Amino acid sequence: MTTPAHPAVESFHTQHSPFGAFASFSVGLVGSPGGFGQSLRGAAKQNVYVGYRADAAGAEWQMLPFFRPPQSNEVAFTGGDPGNSVAPSGFRMLAPAEYDRSLGWASDTWRADTGRFGFSLLSPFSQLPDPATMSRPAARFALAPVVTGWIEFDNRAGRTPVELIFGVGDSDRLLRPVQDAGLDLPGFAAGTDFGYATARSSAVVQRLGFDVFAPKFRDYRGVHVIGGESALVFTVPAGKRKRFPLVLGFYQGGTVTTGVSAGYAYARFFSDLEDVLAHGLANLARYERIAAQRDRELARAKLDADQKFLLAQAAHSYLGSSQLLWNQGKPLWVVNEGEYRMVNTFDLTVDHLFWELEWTPWAVRNALDLFVDRYSYTDKINVGGKLVPGGISFTHDMGVMNHFTPAGHSSYECDHLHGCFSHMTMEQLLNWVLCAVTYAEKTGDVKWLRRRQAVLLACAESLRRRDHPNPKLRDGILKHDSSRCGLDGAEITTYDSLDVSLGQARNNLYLAVKTLGTWVLLEQAFKSLGLKQDGAAARDTADLLAKTLATKFEADTQSFPAVFEKGNRSRIIPAVEGFAYPLYLGLKGACDRQGRFGELLGLLSKHLCGILQPGVCLDGKSGGWKMSSTSTNTWFSKIAIAQHVVRELFPEAMTDAVRAADRVHADWQRRPGCGEHAMCDQINSETGVTCGSRYYPRGVTTILWLRE
Amino acid sequence: MTTPAHPAVESFHTQHSPFGAFASFSVGLVGSPGGFGQSLRGAAKQNVYVGYRADAAGAEWQMLPFFRPPQSNEVAFTGGDPGNSVAPSGFRMLAPAEYDRSLGWASDTWRADTGRFGFSLLSPFSQLPDPATMSRPAARFALAPVVTGWIEFDNRAGRTPVELIFGVGDSDRLLRPVQDAGLDLPGFAAGTDFGYATARSSAVVQRLGFDVFAPKFRDYRGVHVIGGESALVFTVPAGKRKRFPLVLGFYQGGTVTTGVSAGYAYARFFSDLEDVLAHGLANLARYERIAAQRDRELARAKLDADQKFLLAQAAHSYLGSSQLLWNQGKPLWVVNEGEYRMVNTFDLTVDHLFWELEWTPWAVRNALDLFVDRYSYTDKINVGGKLVPGGISFTHDMGVMNHFTPAGHSSYECDHLHGCFSHMTMEQLLNWVLCAVTYAEKTGDVKWLRRRQAVLLACAESLRRRDHPNPKLRDGILKHDSSRCGLDGAEITTYDSLDVSLGQARNNLYLAVKTLGTWVLLEQAFKSLGLKQDGAAARDTADLLAKTLATKFEADTQSFPAVFEKGNRSRIIPAVEGFAYPLYLGLKGACDRQGRFGELLGLLSKHLCGILQPGVCLDGKSGGWKMSSTSTNTWFSKIAIAQHVVRELFPEAMTDAVRAADRVHADWQRRPGCGEHAMCDQINSETGVTCGSRYYPRGVTTILWLRE
Repeated sequence: MTTPAHPAVESFHTQHSPFGAFASFSVGLVGSPGGFGQSLRGAAKQNVYVGYRADAAGAEWQMLPFFRPPQSNEVAFTGGDPGNSVAPSGFRMLAPAEYDRSLGWASDTWRADTGRFGFSLLSPFSQLPDPATMSRPAARFALAPVVTGWIEFDNRAGRTPVELIFGVGDSDRLLRPVQDAGLDLPGFAAGTDFGYATARSSAVVQRLGFDVFAPKFRDYRGVHVIGGESALVFTVPAGKRKRFPLVLGFYQGGTVTTGVSAGYAYARFFSDLEDVLAHGLANLARYERIAAQRDRELARAKLDADQKFLLAQAAHSYLGSSQLLWNQGKPLWVVNEGEYRMVNTFDLTVDHLFWELEWTPWAVRNALDLFVDRYSYTDKINVGGKLVPGGISFTHDMGVMNHFTPAGHSSYECDHLHGCFSHMTMEQLLNWVLCAVTYAEKTGDVKWLRRRQAVLLACAESLRRRDHPNPKLRDGILKHDSSRCGLDGAEITTYDSLDVSLGQARNNLYLAVKTLGTWVLLEQAFKSLGLKQDGAAARDTADLLAKTLATKFEADTQSFPAVFEKGNRSRIIPAVEGFAYPLYLGLKGACDRQGRFGELLGLLSKHLCGILQPGVCLDGKSGGWKMSSTSTNTWFSKIAIAQHVVRELFPEAMTDAVRAADRVHADWQRRPGCGEHAMCDQINSETGVTCGSRYYPRGVTTILWLRE
Repeated sequence: MTTPAHPAVESFHTQHSPFGAFASFSVGLVGSPGGFGQSLRGAAKQNVYVGYRADAAGAEWQMLPFFRPPQSNEVAFTGGDPGNSVAPSGFRMLAPAEYDRSLGWASDTWRADTGRFGFSLLSPFSQLPDPATMSRPAARFALAPVVTGWIEFDNRAGRTPVELIFGVGDSDRLLRPVQDAGLDLPGFAAGTDFGYATARSSAVVQRLGFDVFAPKFRDYRGVHVIGGESALVFTVPAGKRKRFPLVLGFYQGGTVTTGVSAGYAYARFFSDLEDVLAHGLANLARYERIAAQRDRELARAKLDADQKFLLAQAAHSYLGSSQLLWNQGKPLWVVNEGEYRMVNTFDLTVDHLFWELEWTPWAVRNALDLFVDRYSYTDKINVGGKLVPGGISFTHDMGVMNHFTPAGHSSYECDHLHGCFSHMTMEQLLNWVLCAVTYAEKTGDVKWLRRRQAVLLACAESLRRRDHPNPKLRDGILKHDSSRCGLDGAEITTYDSLDVSLGQARNNLYLAVKTLGTWVLLEQAFKSLGLKQDGAAARDTADLLAKTLATKFEADTQSFPAVFEKGNRSRIIPAVEGFAYPLYLGLKGACDRQGRFGELLGLLSKHLCGILQPGVCLDGKSGGWKMSSTSTNTWFSKIAIAQHVVRELFPEAMTDAVRAADRVHADWQRRPGCGEHAMCDQINSETGVTCGSRYYPRGVTTILWLRE
């Protein structure tokens, strides 16, 4: 349908990450370093050496393009002129056309030399029970901060040995043999923080020095510890096919967060990095089985190849931002917000919900509890310039960069603003209810919901008051800003960086439909809790709101305005986002096109059919989905939710052009405009270049697609 | 005498460092960031905000040039084009001509606005008892990883308030209020690692956000925690002079080294960074008194201004590389080797000796014990291609980058080499004896020497065998390489990166005179230990060696060749380095121009007078001292030792040209060719540009000058 702005070269970093370690081994961008990073806002900058040499005697190394030939550090020692330093030689970089890469849900595999060479990194994930109840062996297996992998060559047809290389160079950190810290394996580590190893074998030698290709200096054991560039070199004899295991580990002991002083959960079960590496190697087969299982599941899913790629890349970046801490004897769950590294941004929690309910439902509950216990507040609201009692809500986030902000306050929200960085009181209030009810209904944990019943009731009351303090004047739509904004400020929505079509909270179509979804869920929750009166009231509010919404439909344009104010005529796709929750819980009554919201759903169908058109909410240049007709900033994770809702509830809007966008969205992510930052969320819909939310976990909203 | 190669602009980083924390707050290079760094190989890259605004309303900030106006991180959040981001404005960078900087032994002070503005960082050091015996309060005071300072303005003549600013920005790490971690002070920290604070005062406000000059976004307490750039802003009312205290702290808990798993000694006495900052502020006056005392001592020293600068800059970089660890209930002393970060490089230990015997004599003993217990070995020697028993020696270093290499092996030394990275068996053997005897004789710790008597005797025997296994063929000079080099390799000296004049160990003038100094010290040690026979033997060997050396003098050139082989005719200043030790211990017999070594000393005098000439060992372009006539790579720390020996023992060589080099050496260090790396050691003598050994501790050999 459209011609992509970028040449069609796949080039993207992927985060290879253990569960809950806020750590990634990033690799894949063509011509770029990567490697081990902990708590970083993007890929690390280490040289990653992966390649093979098809003739052990004299031939050039064929290398994946994941390092920059280091200017030798030798001259810093020999007193030479840095300009005269000699970069390593004896290798060539494979061009992208010379290798294949295939990204699975839990694997990333490169093949070259007609498939004889292979390299793979695995990041298995699976359904985990609450870490508070895990046995020690189970916890060691589930929480190990390790990524496994392998490197192989099929030399069955060969007449000479073939060498394989895997290594990492970091002249800022330097690496040292893991043996020196008591682990009798070939491998290297940087300090106590990260490293890699393989199994003992006569086929492997260690290289450490200024140059891994042609080491000039060797000590008594053949390495040079001051060198900084490290590698394992494996030999595959002629006539043999050999696969060698790789384990990549991370470790950070002690207190890693401030505000709330917590350490990593894994640090309770592993004494140090060497413990992690040894464990990884001992349990390699089990990890590989899980990764293969995940890969199979995705491969068999009824999705096209572009969709599968998006799910796979998303899962990898989500794991890289995941962080399981331990605080005062209990698990403390965090997902960090990609490049921003905000702690448990609630806007993300609500989107990660669908992923986490599949794999780690206790994580949702854990975050919700902390939002109540530490990050809730009660405000006033601005009614015509006067402050009157408001109600409960929650902060946008819990802090940033391993720092927990003081109770009741986020790191993001500022006062006296109308745009970015303002408060999101209503948005987060909805998010708590949506997460809480979806969690409880999906998992059947009504016991927890009952424990939080008072909060749920307070949320309902807070919602009502934000509509209007005077019950007679309520129509279901948020009309009053939180006192936290100051009398001169206004609340915003999670779509903070879009234009006014999605930015302002008051009288906002997106937020109003999300409010409707929230009331539907409240009705369901109150039913589960046996709170008949509250359930009936919730039902009434939902019906009222649906009716109000219907009145906002523009007869002339056959669509809804994004904001019910000031003649706004922007068109937005997230008009239907609020239906994701009733849809997810299978609340048929709410989703029935002939049911209680039939009128509204019919109008939304017209809205979608009208706006999912090139030049409106399909970008005129790229064909990608645009959240708003008036902004070129579009967010992939939100596209994924909307796609799910549209395909499930409004299939009539799925024209060929609408459907073709899957390819566009995948191309955005796998080309350098986004690819250098692994998964990206905010993307310029014309150019496919990211404009924010890089290295981002939220793409896992794509898991909804597996329900279709 | 010469015209400096660089424009005469002072521009240099200085490391502001606590004792033993392997940490520096580096600042001072014009136009450059700096800031907090732990275990780095050079200055950090943080924005350092220091300045004043003479009129609180509207005037521009006058800033020291220590930051790069950050492209606002705001656009990463607002989805804008990074190219359109707006850098902060409302300030101007002061040009070097607009401010004065004065570096003291333990202080670094900037003045501007005719002295009304002042900013100072203090890094006091003092004589410390063995940490193994320190009381807790003493240890907290001595080992606190804190740097103190102040910022002030004399607004007594002003009619409007003046604002002062001190801050740090780091968008990779982000900073957060220290209050959030329970320290009720104005200040900011990055994670658990480093931060700064001031005293509570109504005159100070905190700034944290994207822009410290004109913060656009403020939360409930006036900061924006996601911003990354932080500052404290102080107000000085009209008519007042105010000085505000600053404390800069570091912290790293847990295990910080591998190979030997040790943590920081300070971590035994401080629970976290906030504890350090609070302590620093509470003890500010005491730290200031010590810094002032050191500053006075240097100011009153009989040295010229250039020499004083060199001592001051050297002390700062030494502290930055110092690292007091704690291992298995005992102190573990490390000095890291500047940019190379090798652990206790013995070549440096022997040069730091003079400094450490003044301030921390137990540190010398600590390192010597570890060299015996973990980093000694017994080798064979290469006698005409056959290996025969050698003797004891010690490794070049104990590891690198917080990693201790396996027992008996360094990180640096490799096999089968003739140049850089070869073994330094003889050099380190001499170093152990020189350090051990100098330590014991200077401190009177004969008890320790007696405990190490067997080692000392083994060293003497090892020295003899390296001369020749056959006693009859001995002349005192090293003639046989260690088996560690392999039969195809050769030992080198510490002057590894110079040419053959100083590189080769065998038949080397520098090493031979150093061997003489070693025998003189052995003679003294055996006397102290009551080992008459060994003392007599040592004396005999010294006399023999002195005689042998005298035979190497070239009558035609009236100087010594650098190497007694292959017609070498290089001329070297370190010919006299070996006399530094007898001179230091006041062993008059050895240093007496009319005494037992009178002939040799007379020849060395001729040697020095002949080579300390422009175009030989005074650089023809710069006038600086050259270690070797045939290499432009010269080492400042070694110049400093040689200057001391020459001025004390061979004053006749001190011509005006020779003396004028102090200015040259100081200019090298305070201009950007070296200055961007704080103290540098290896310098191109023509250009004054460093060619190795940056950010280097060894300049403290200058402390010898205080003895003149």
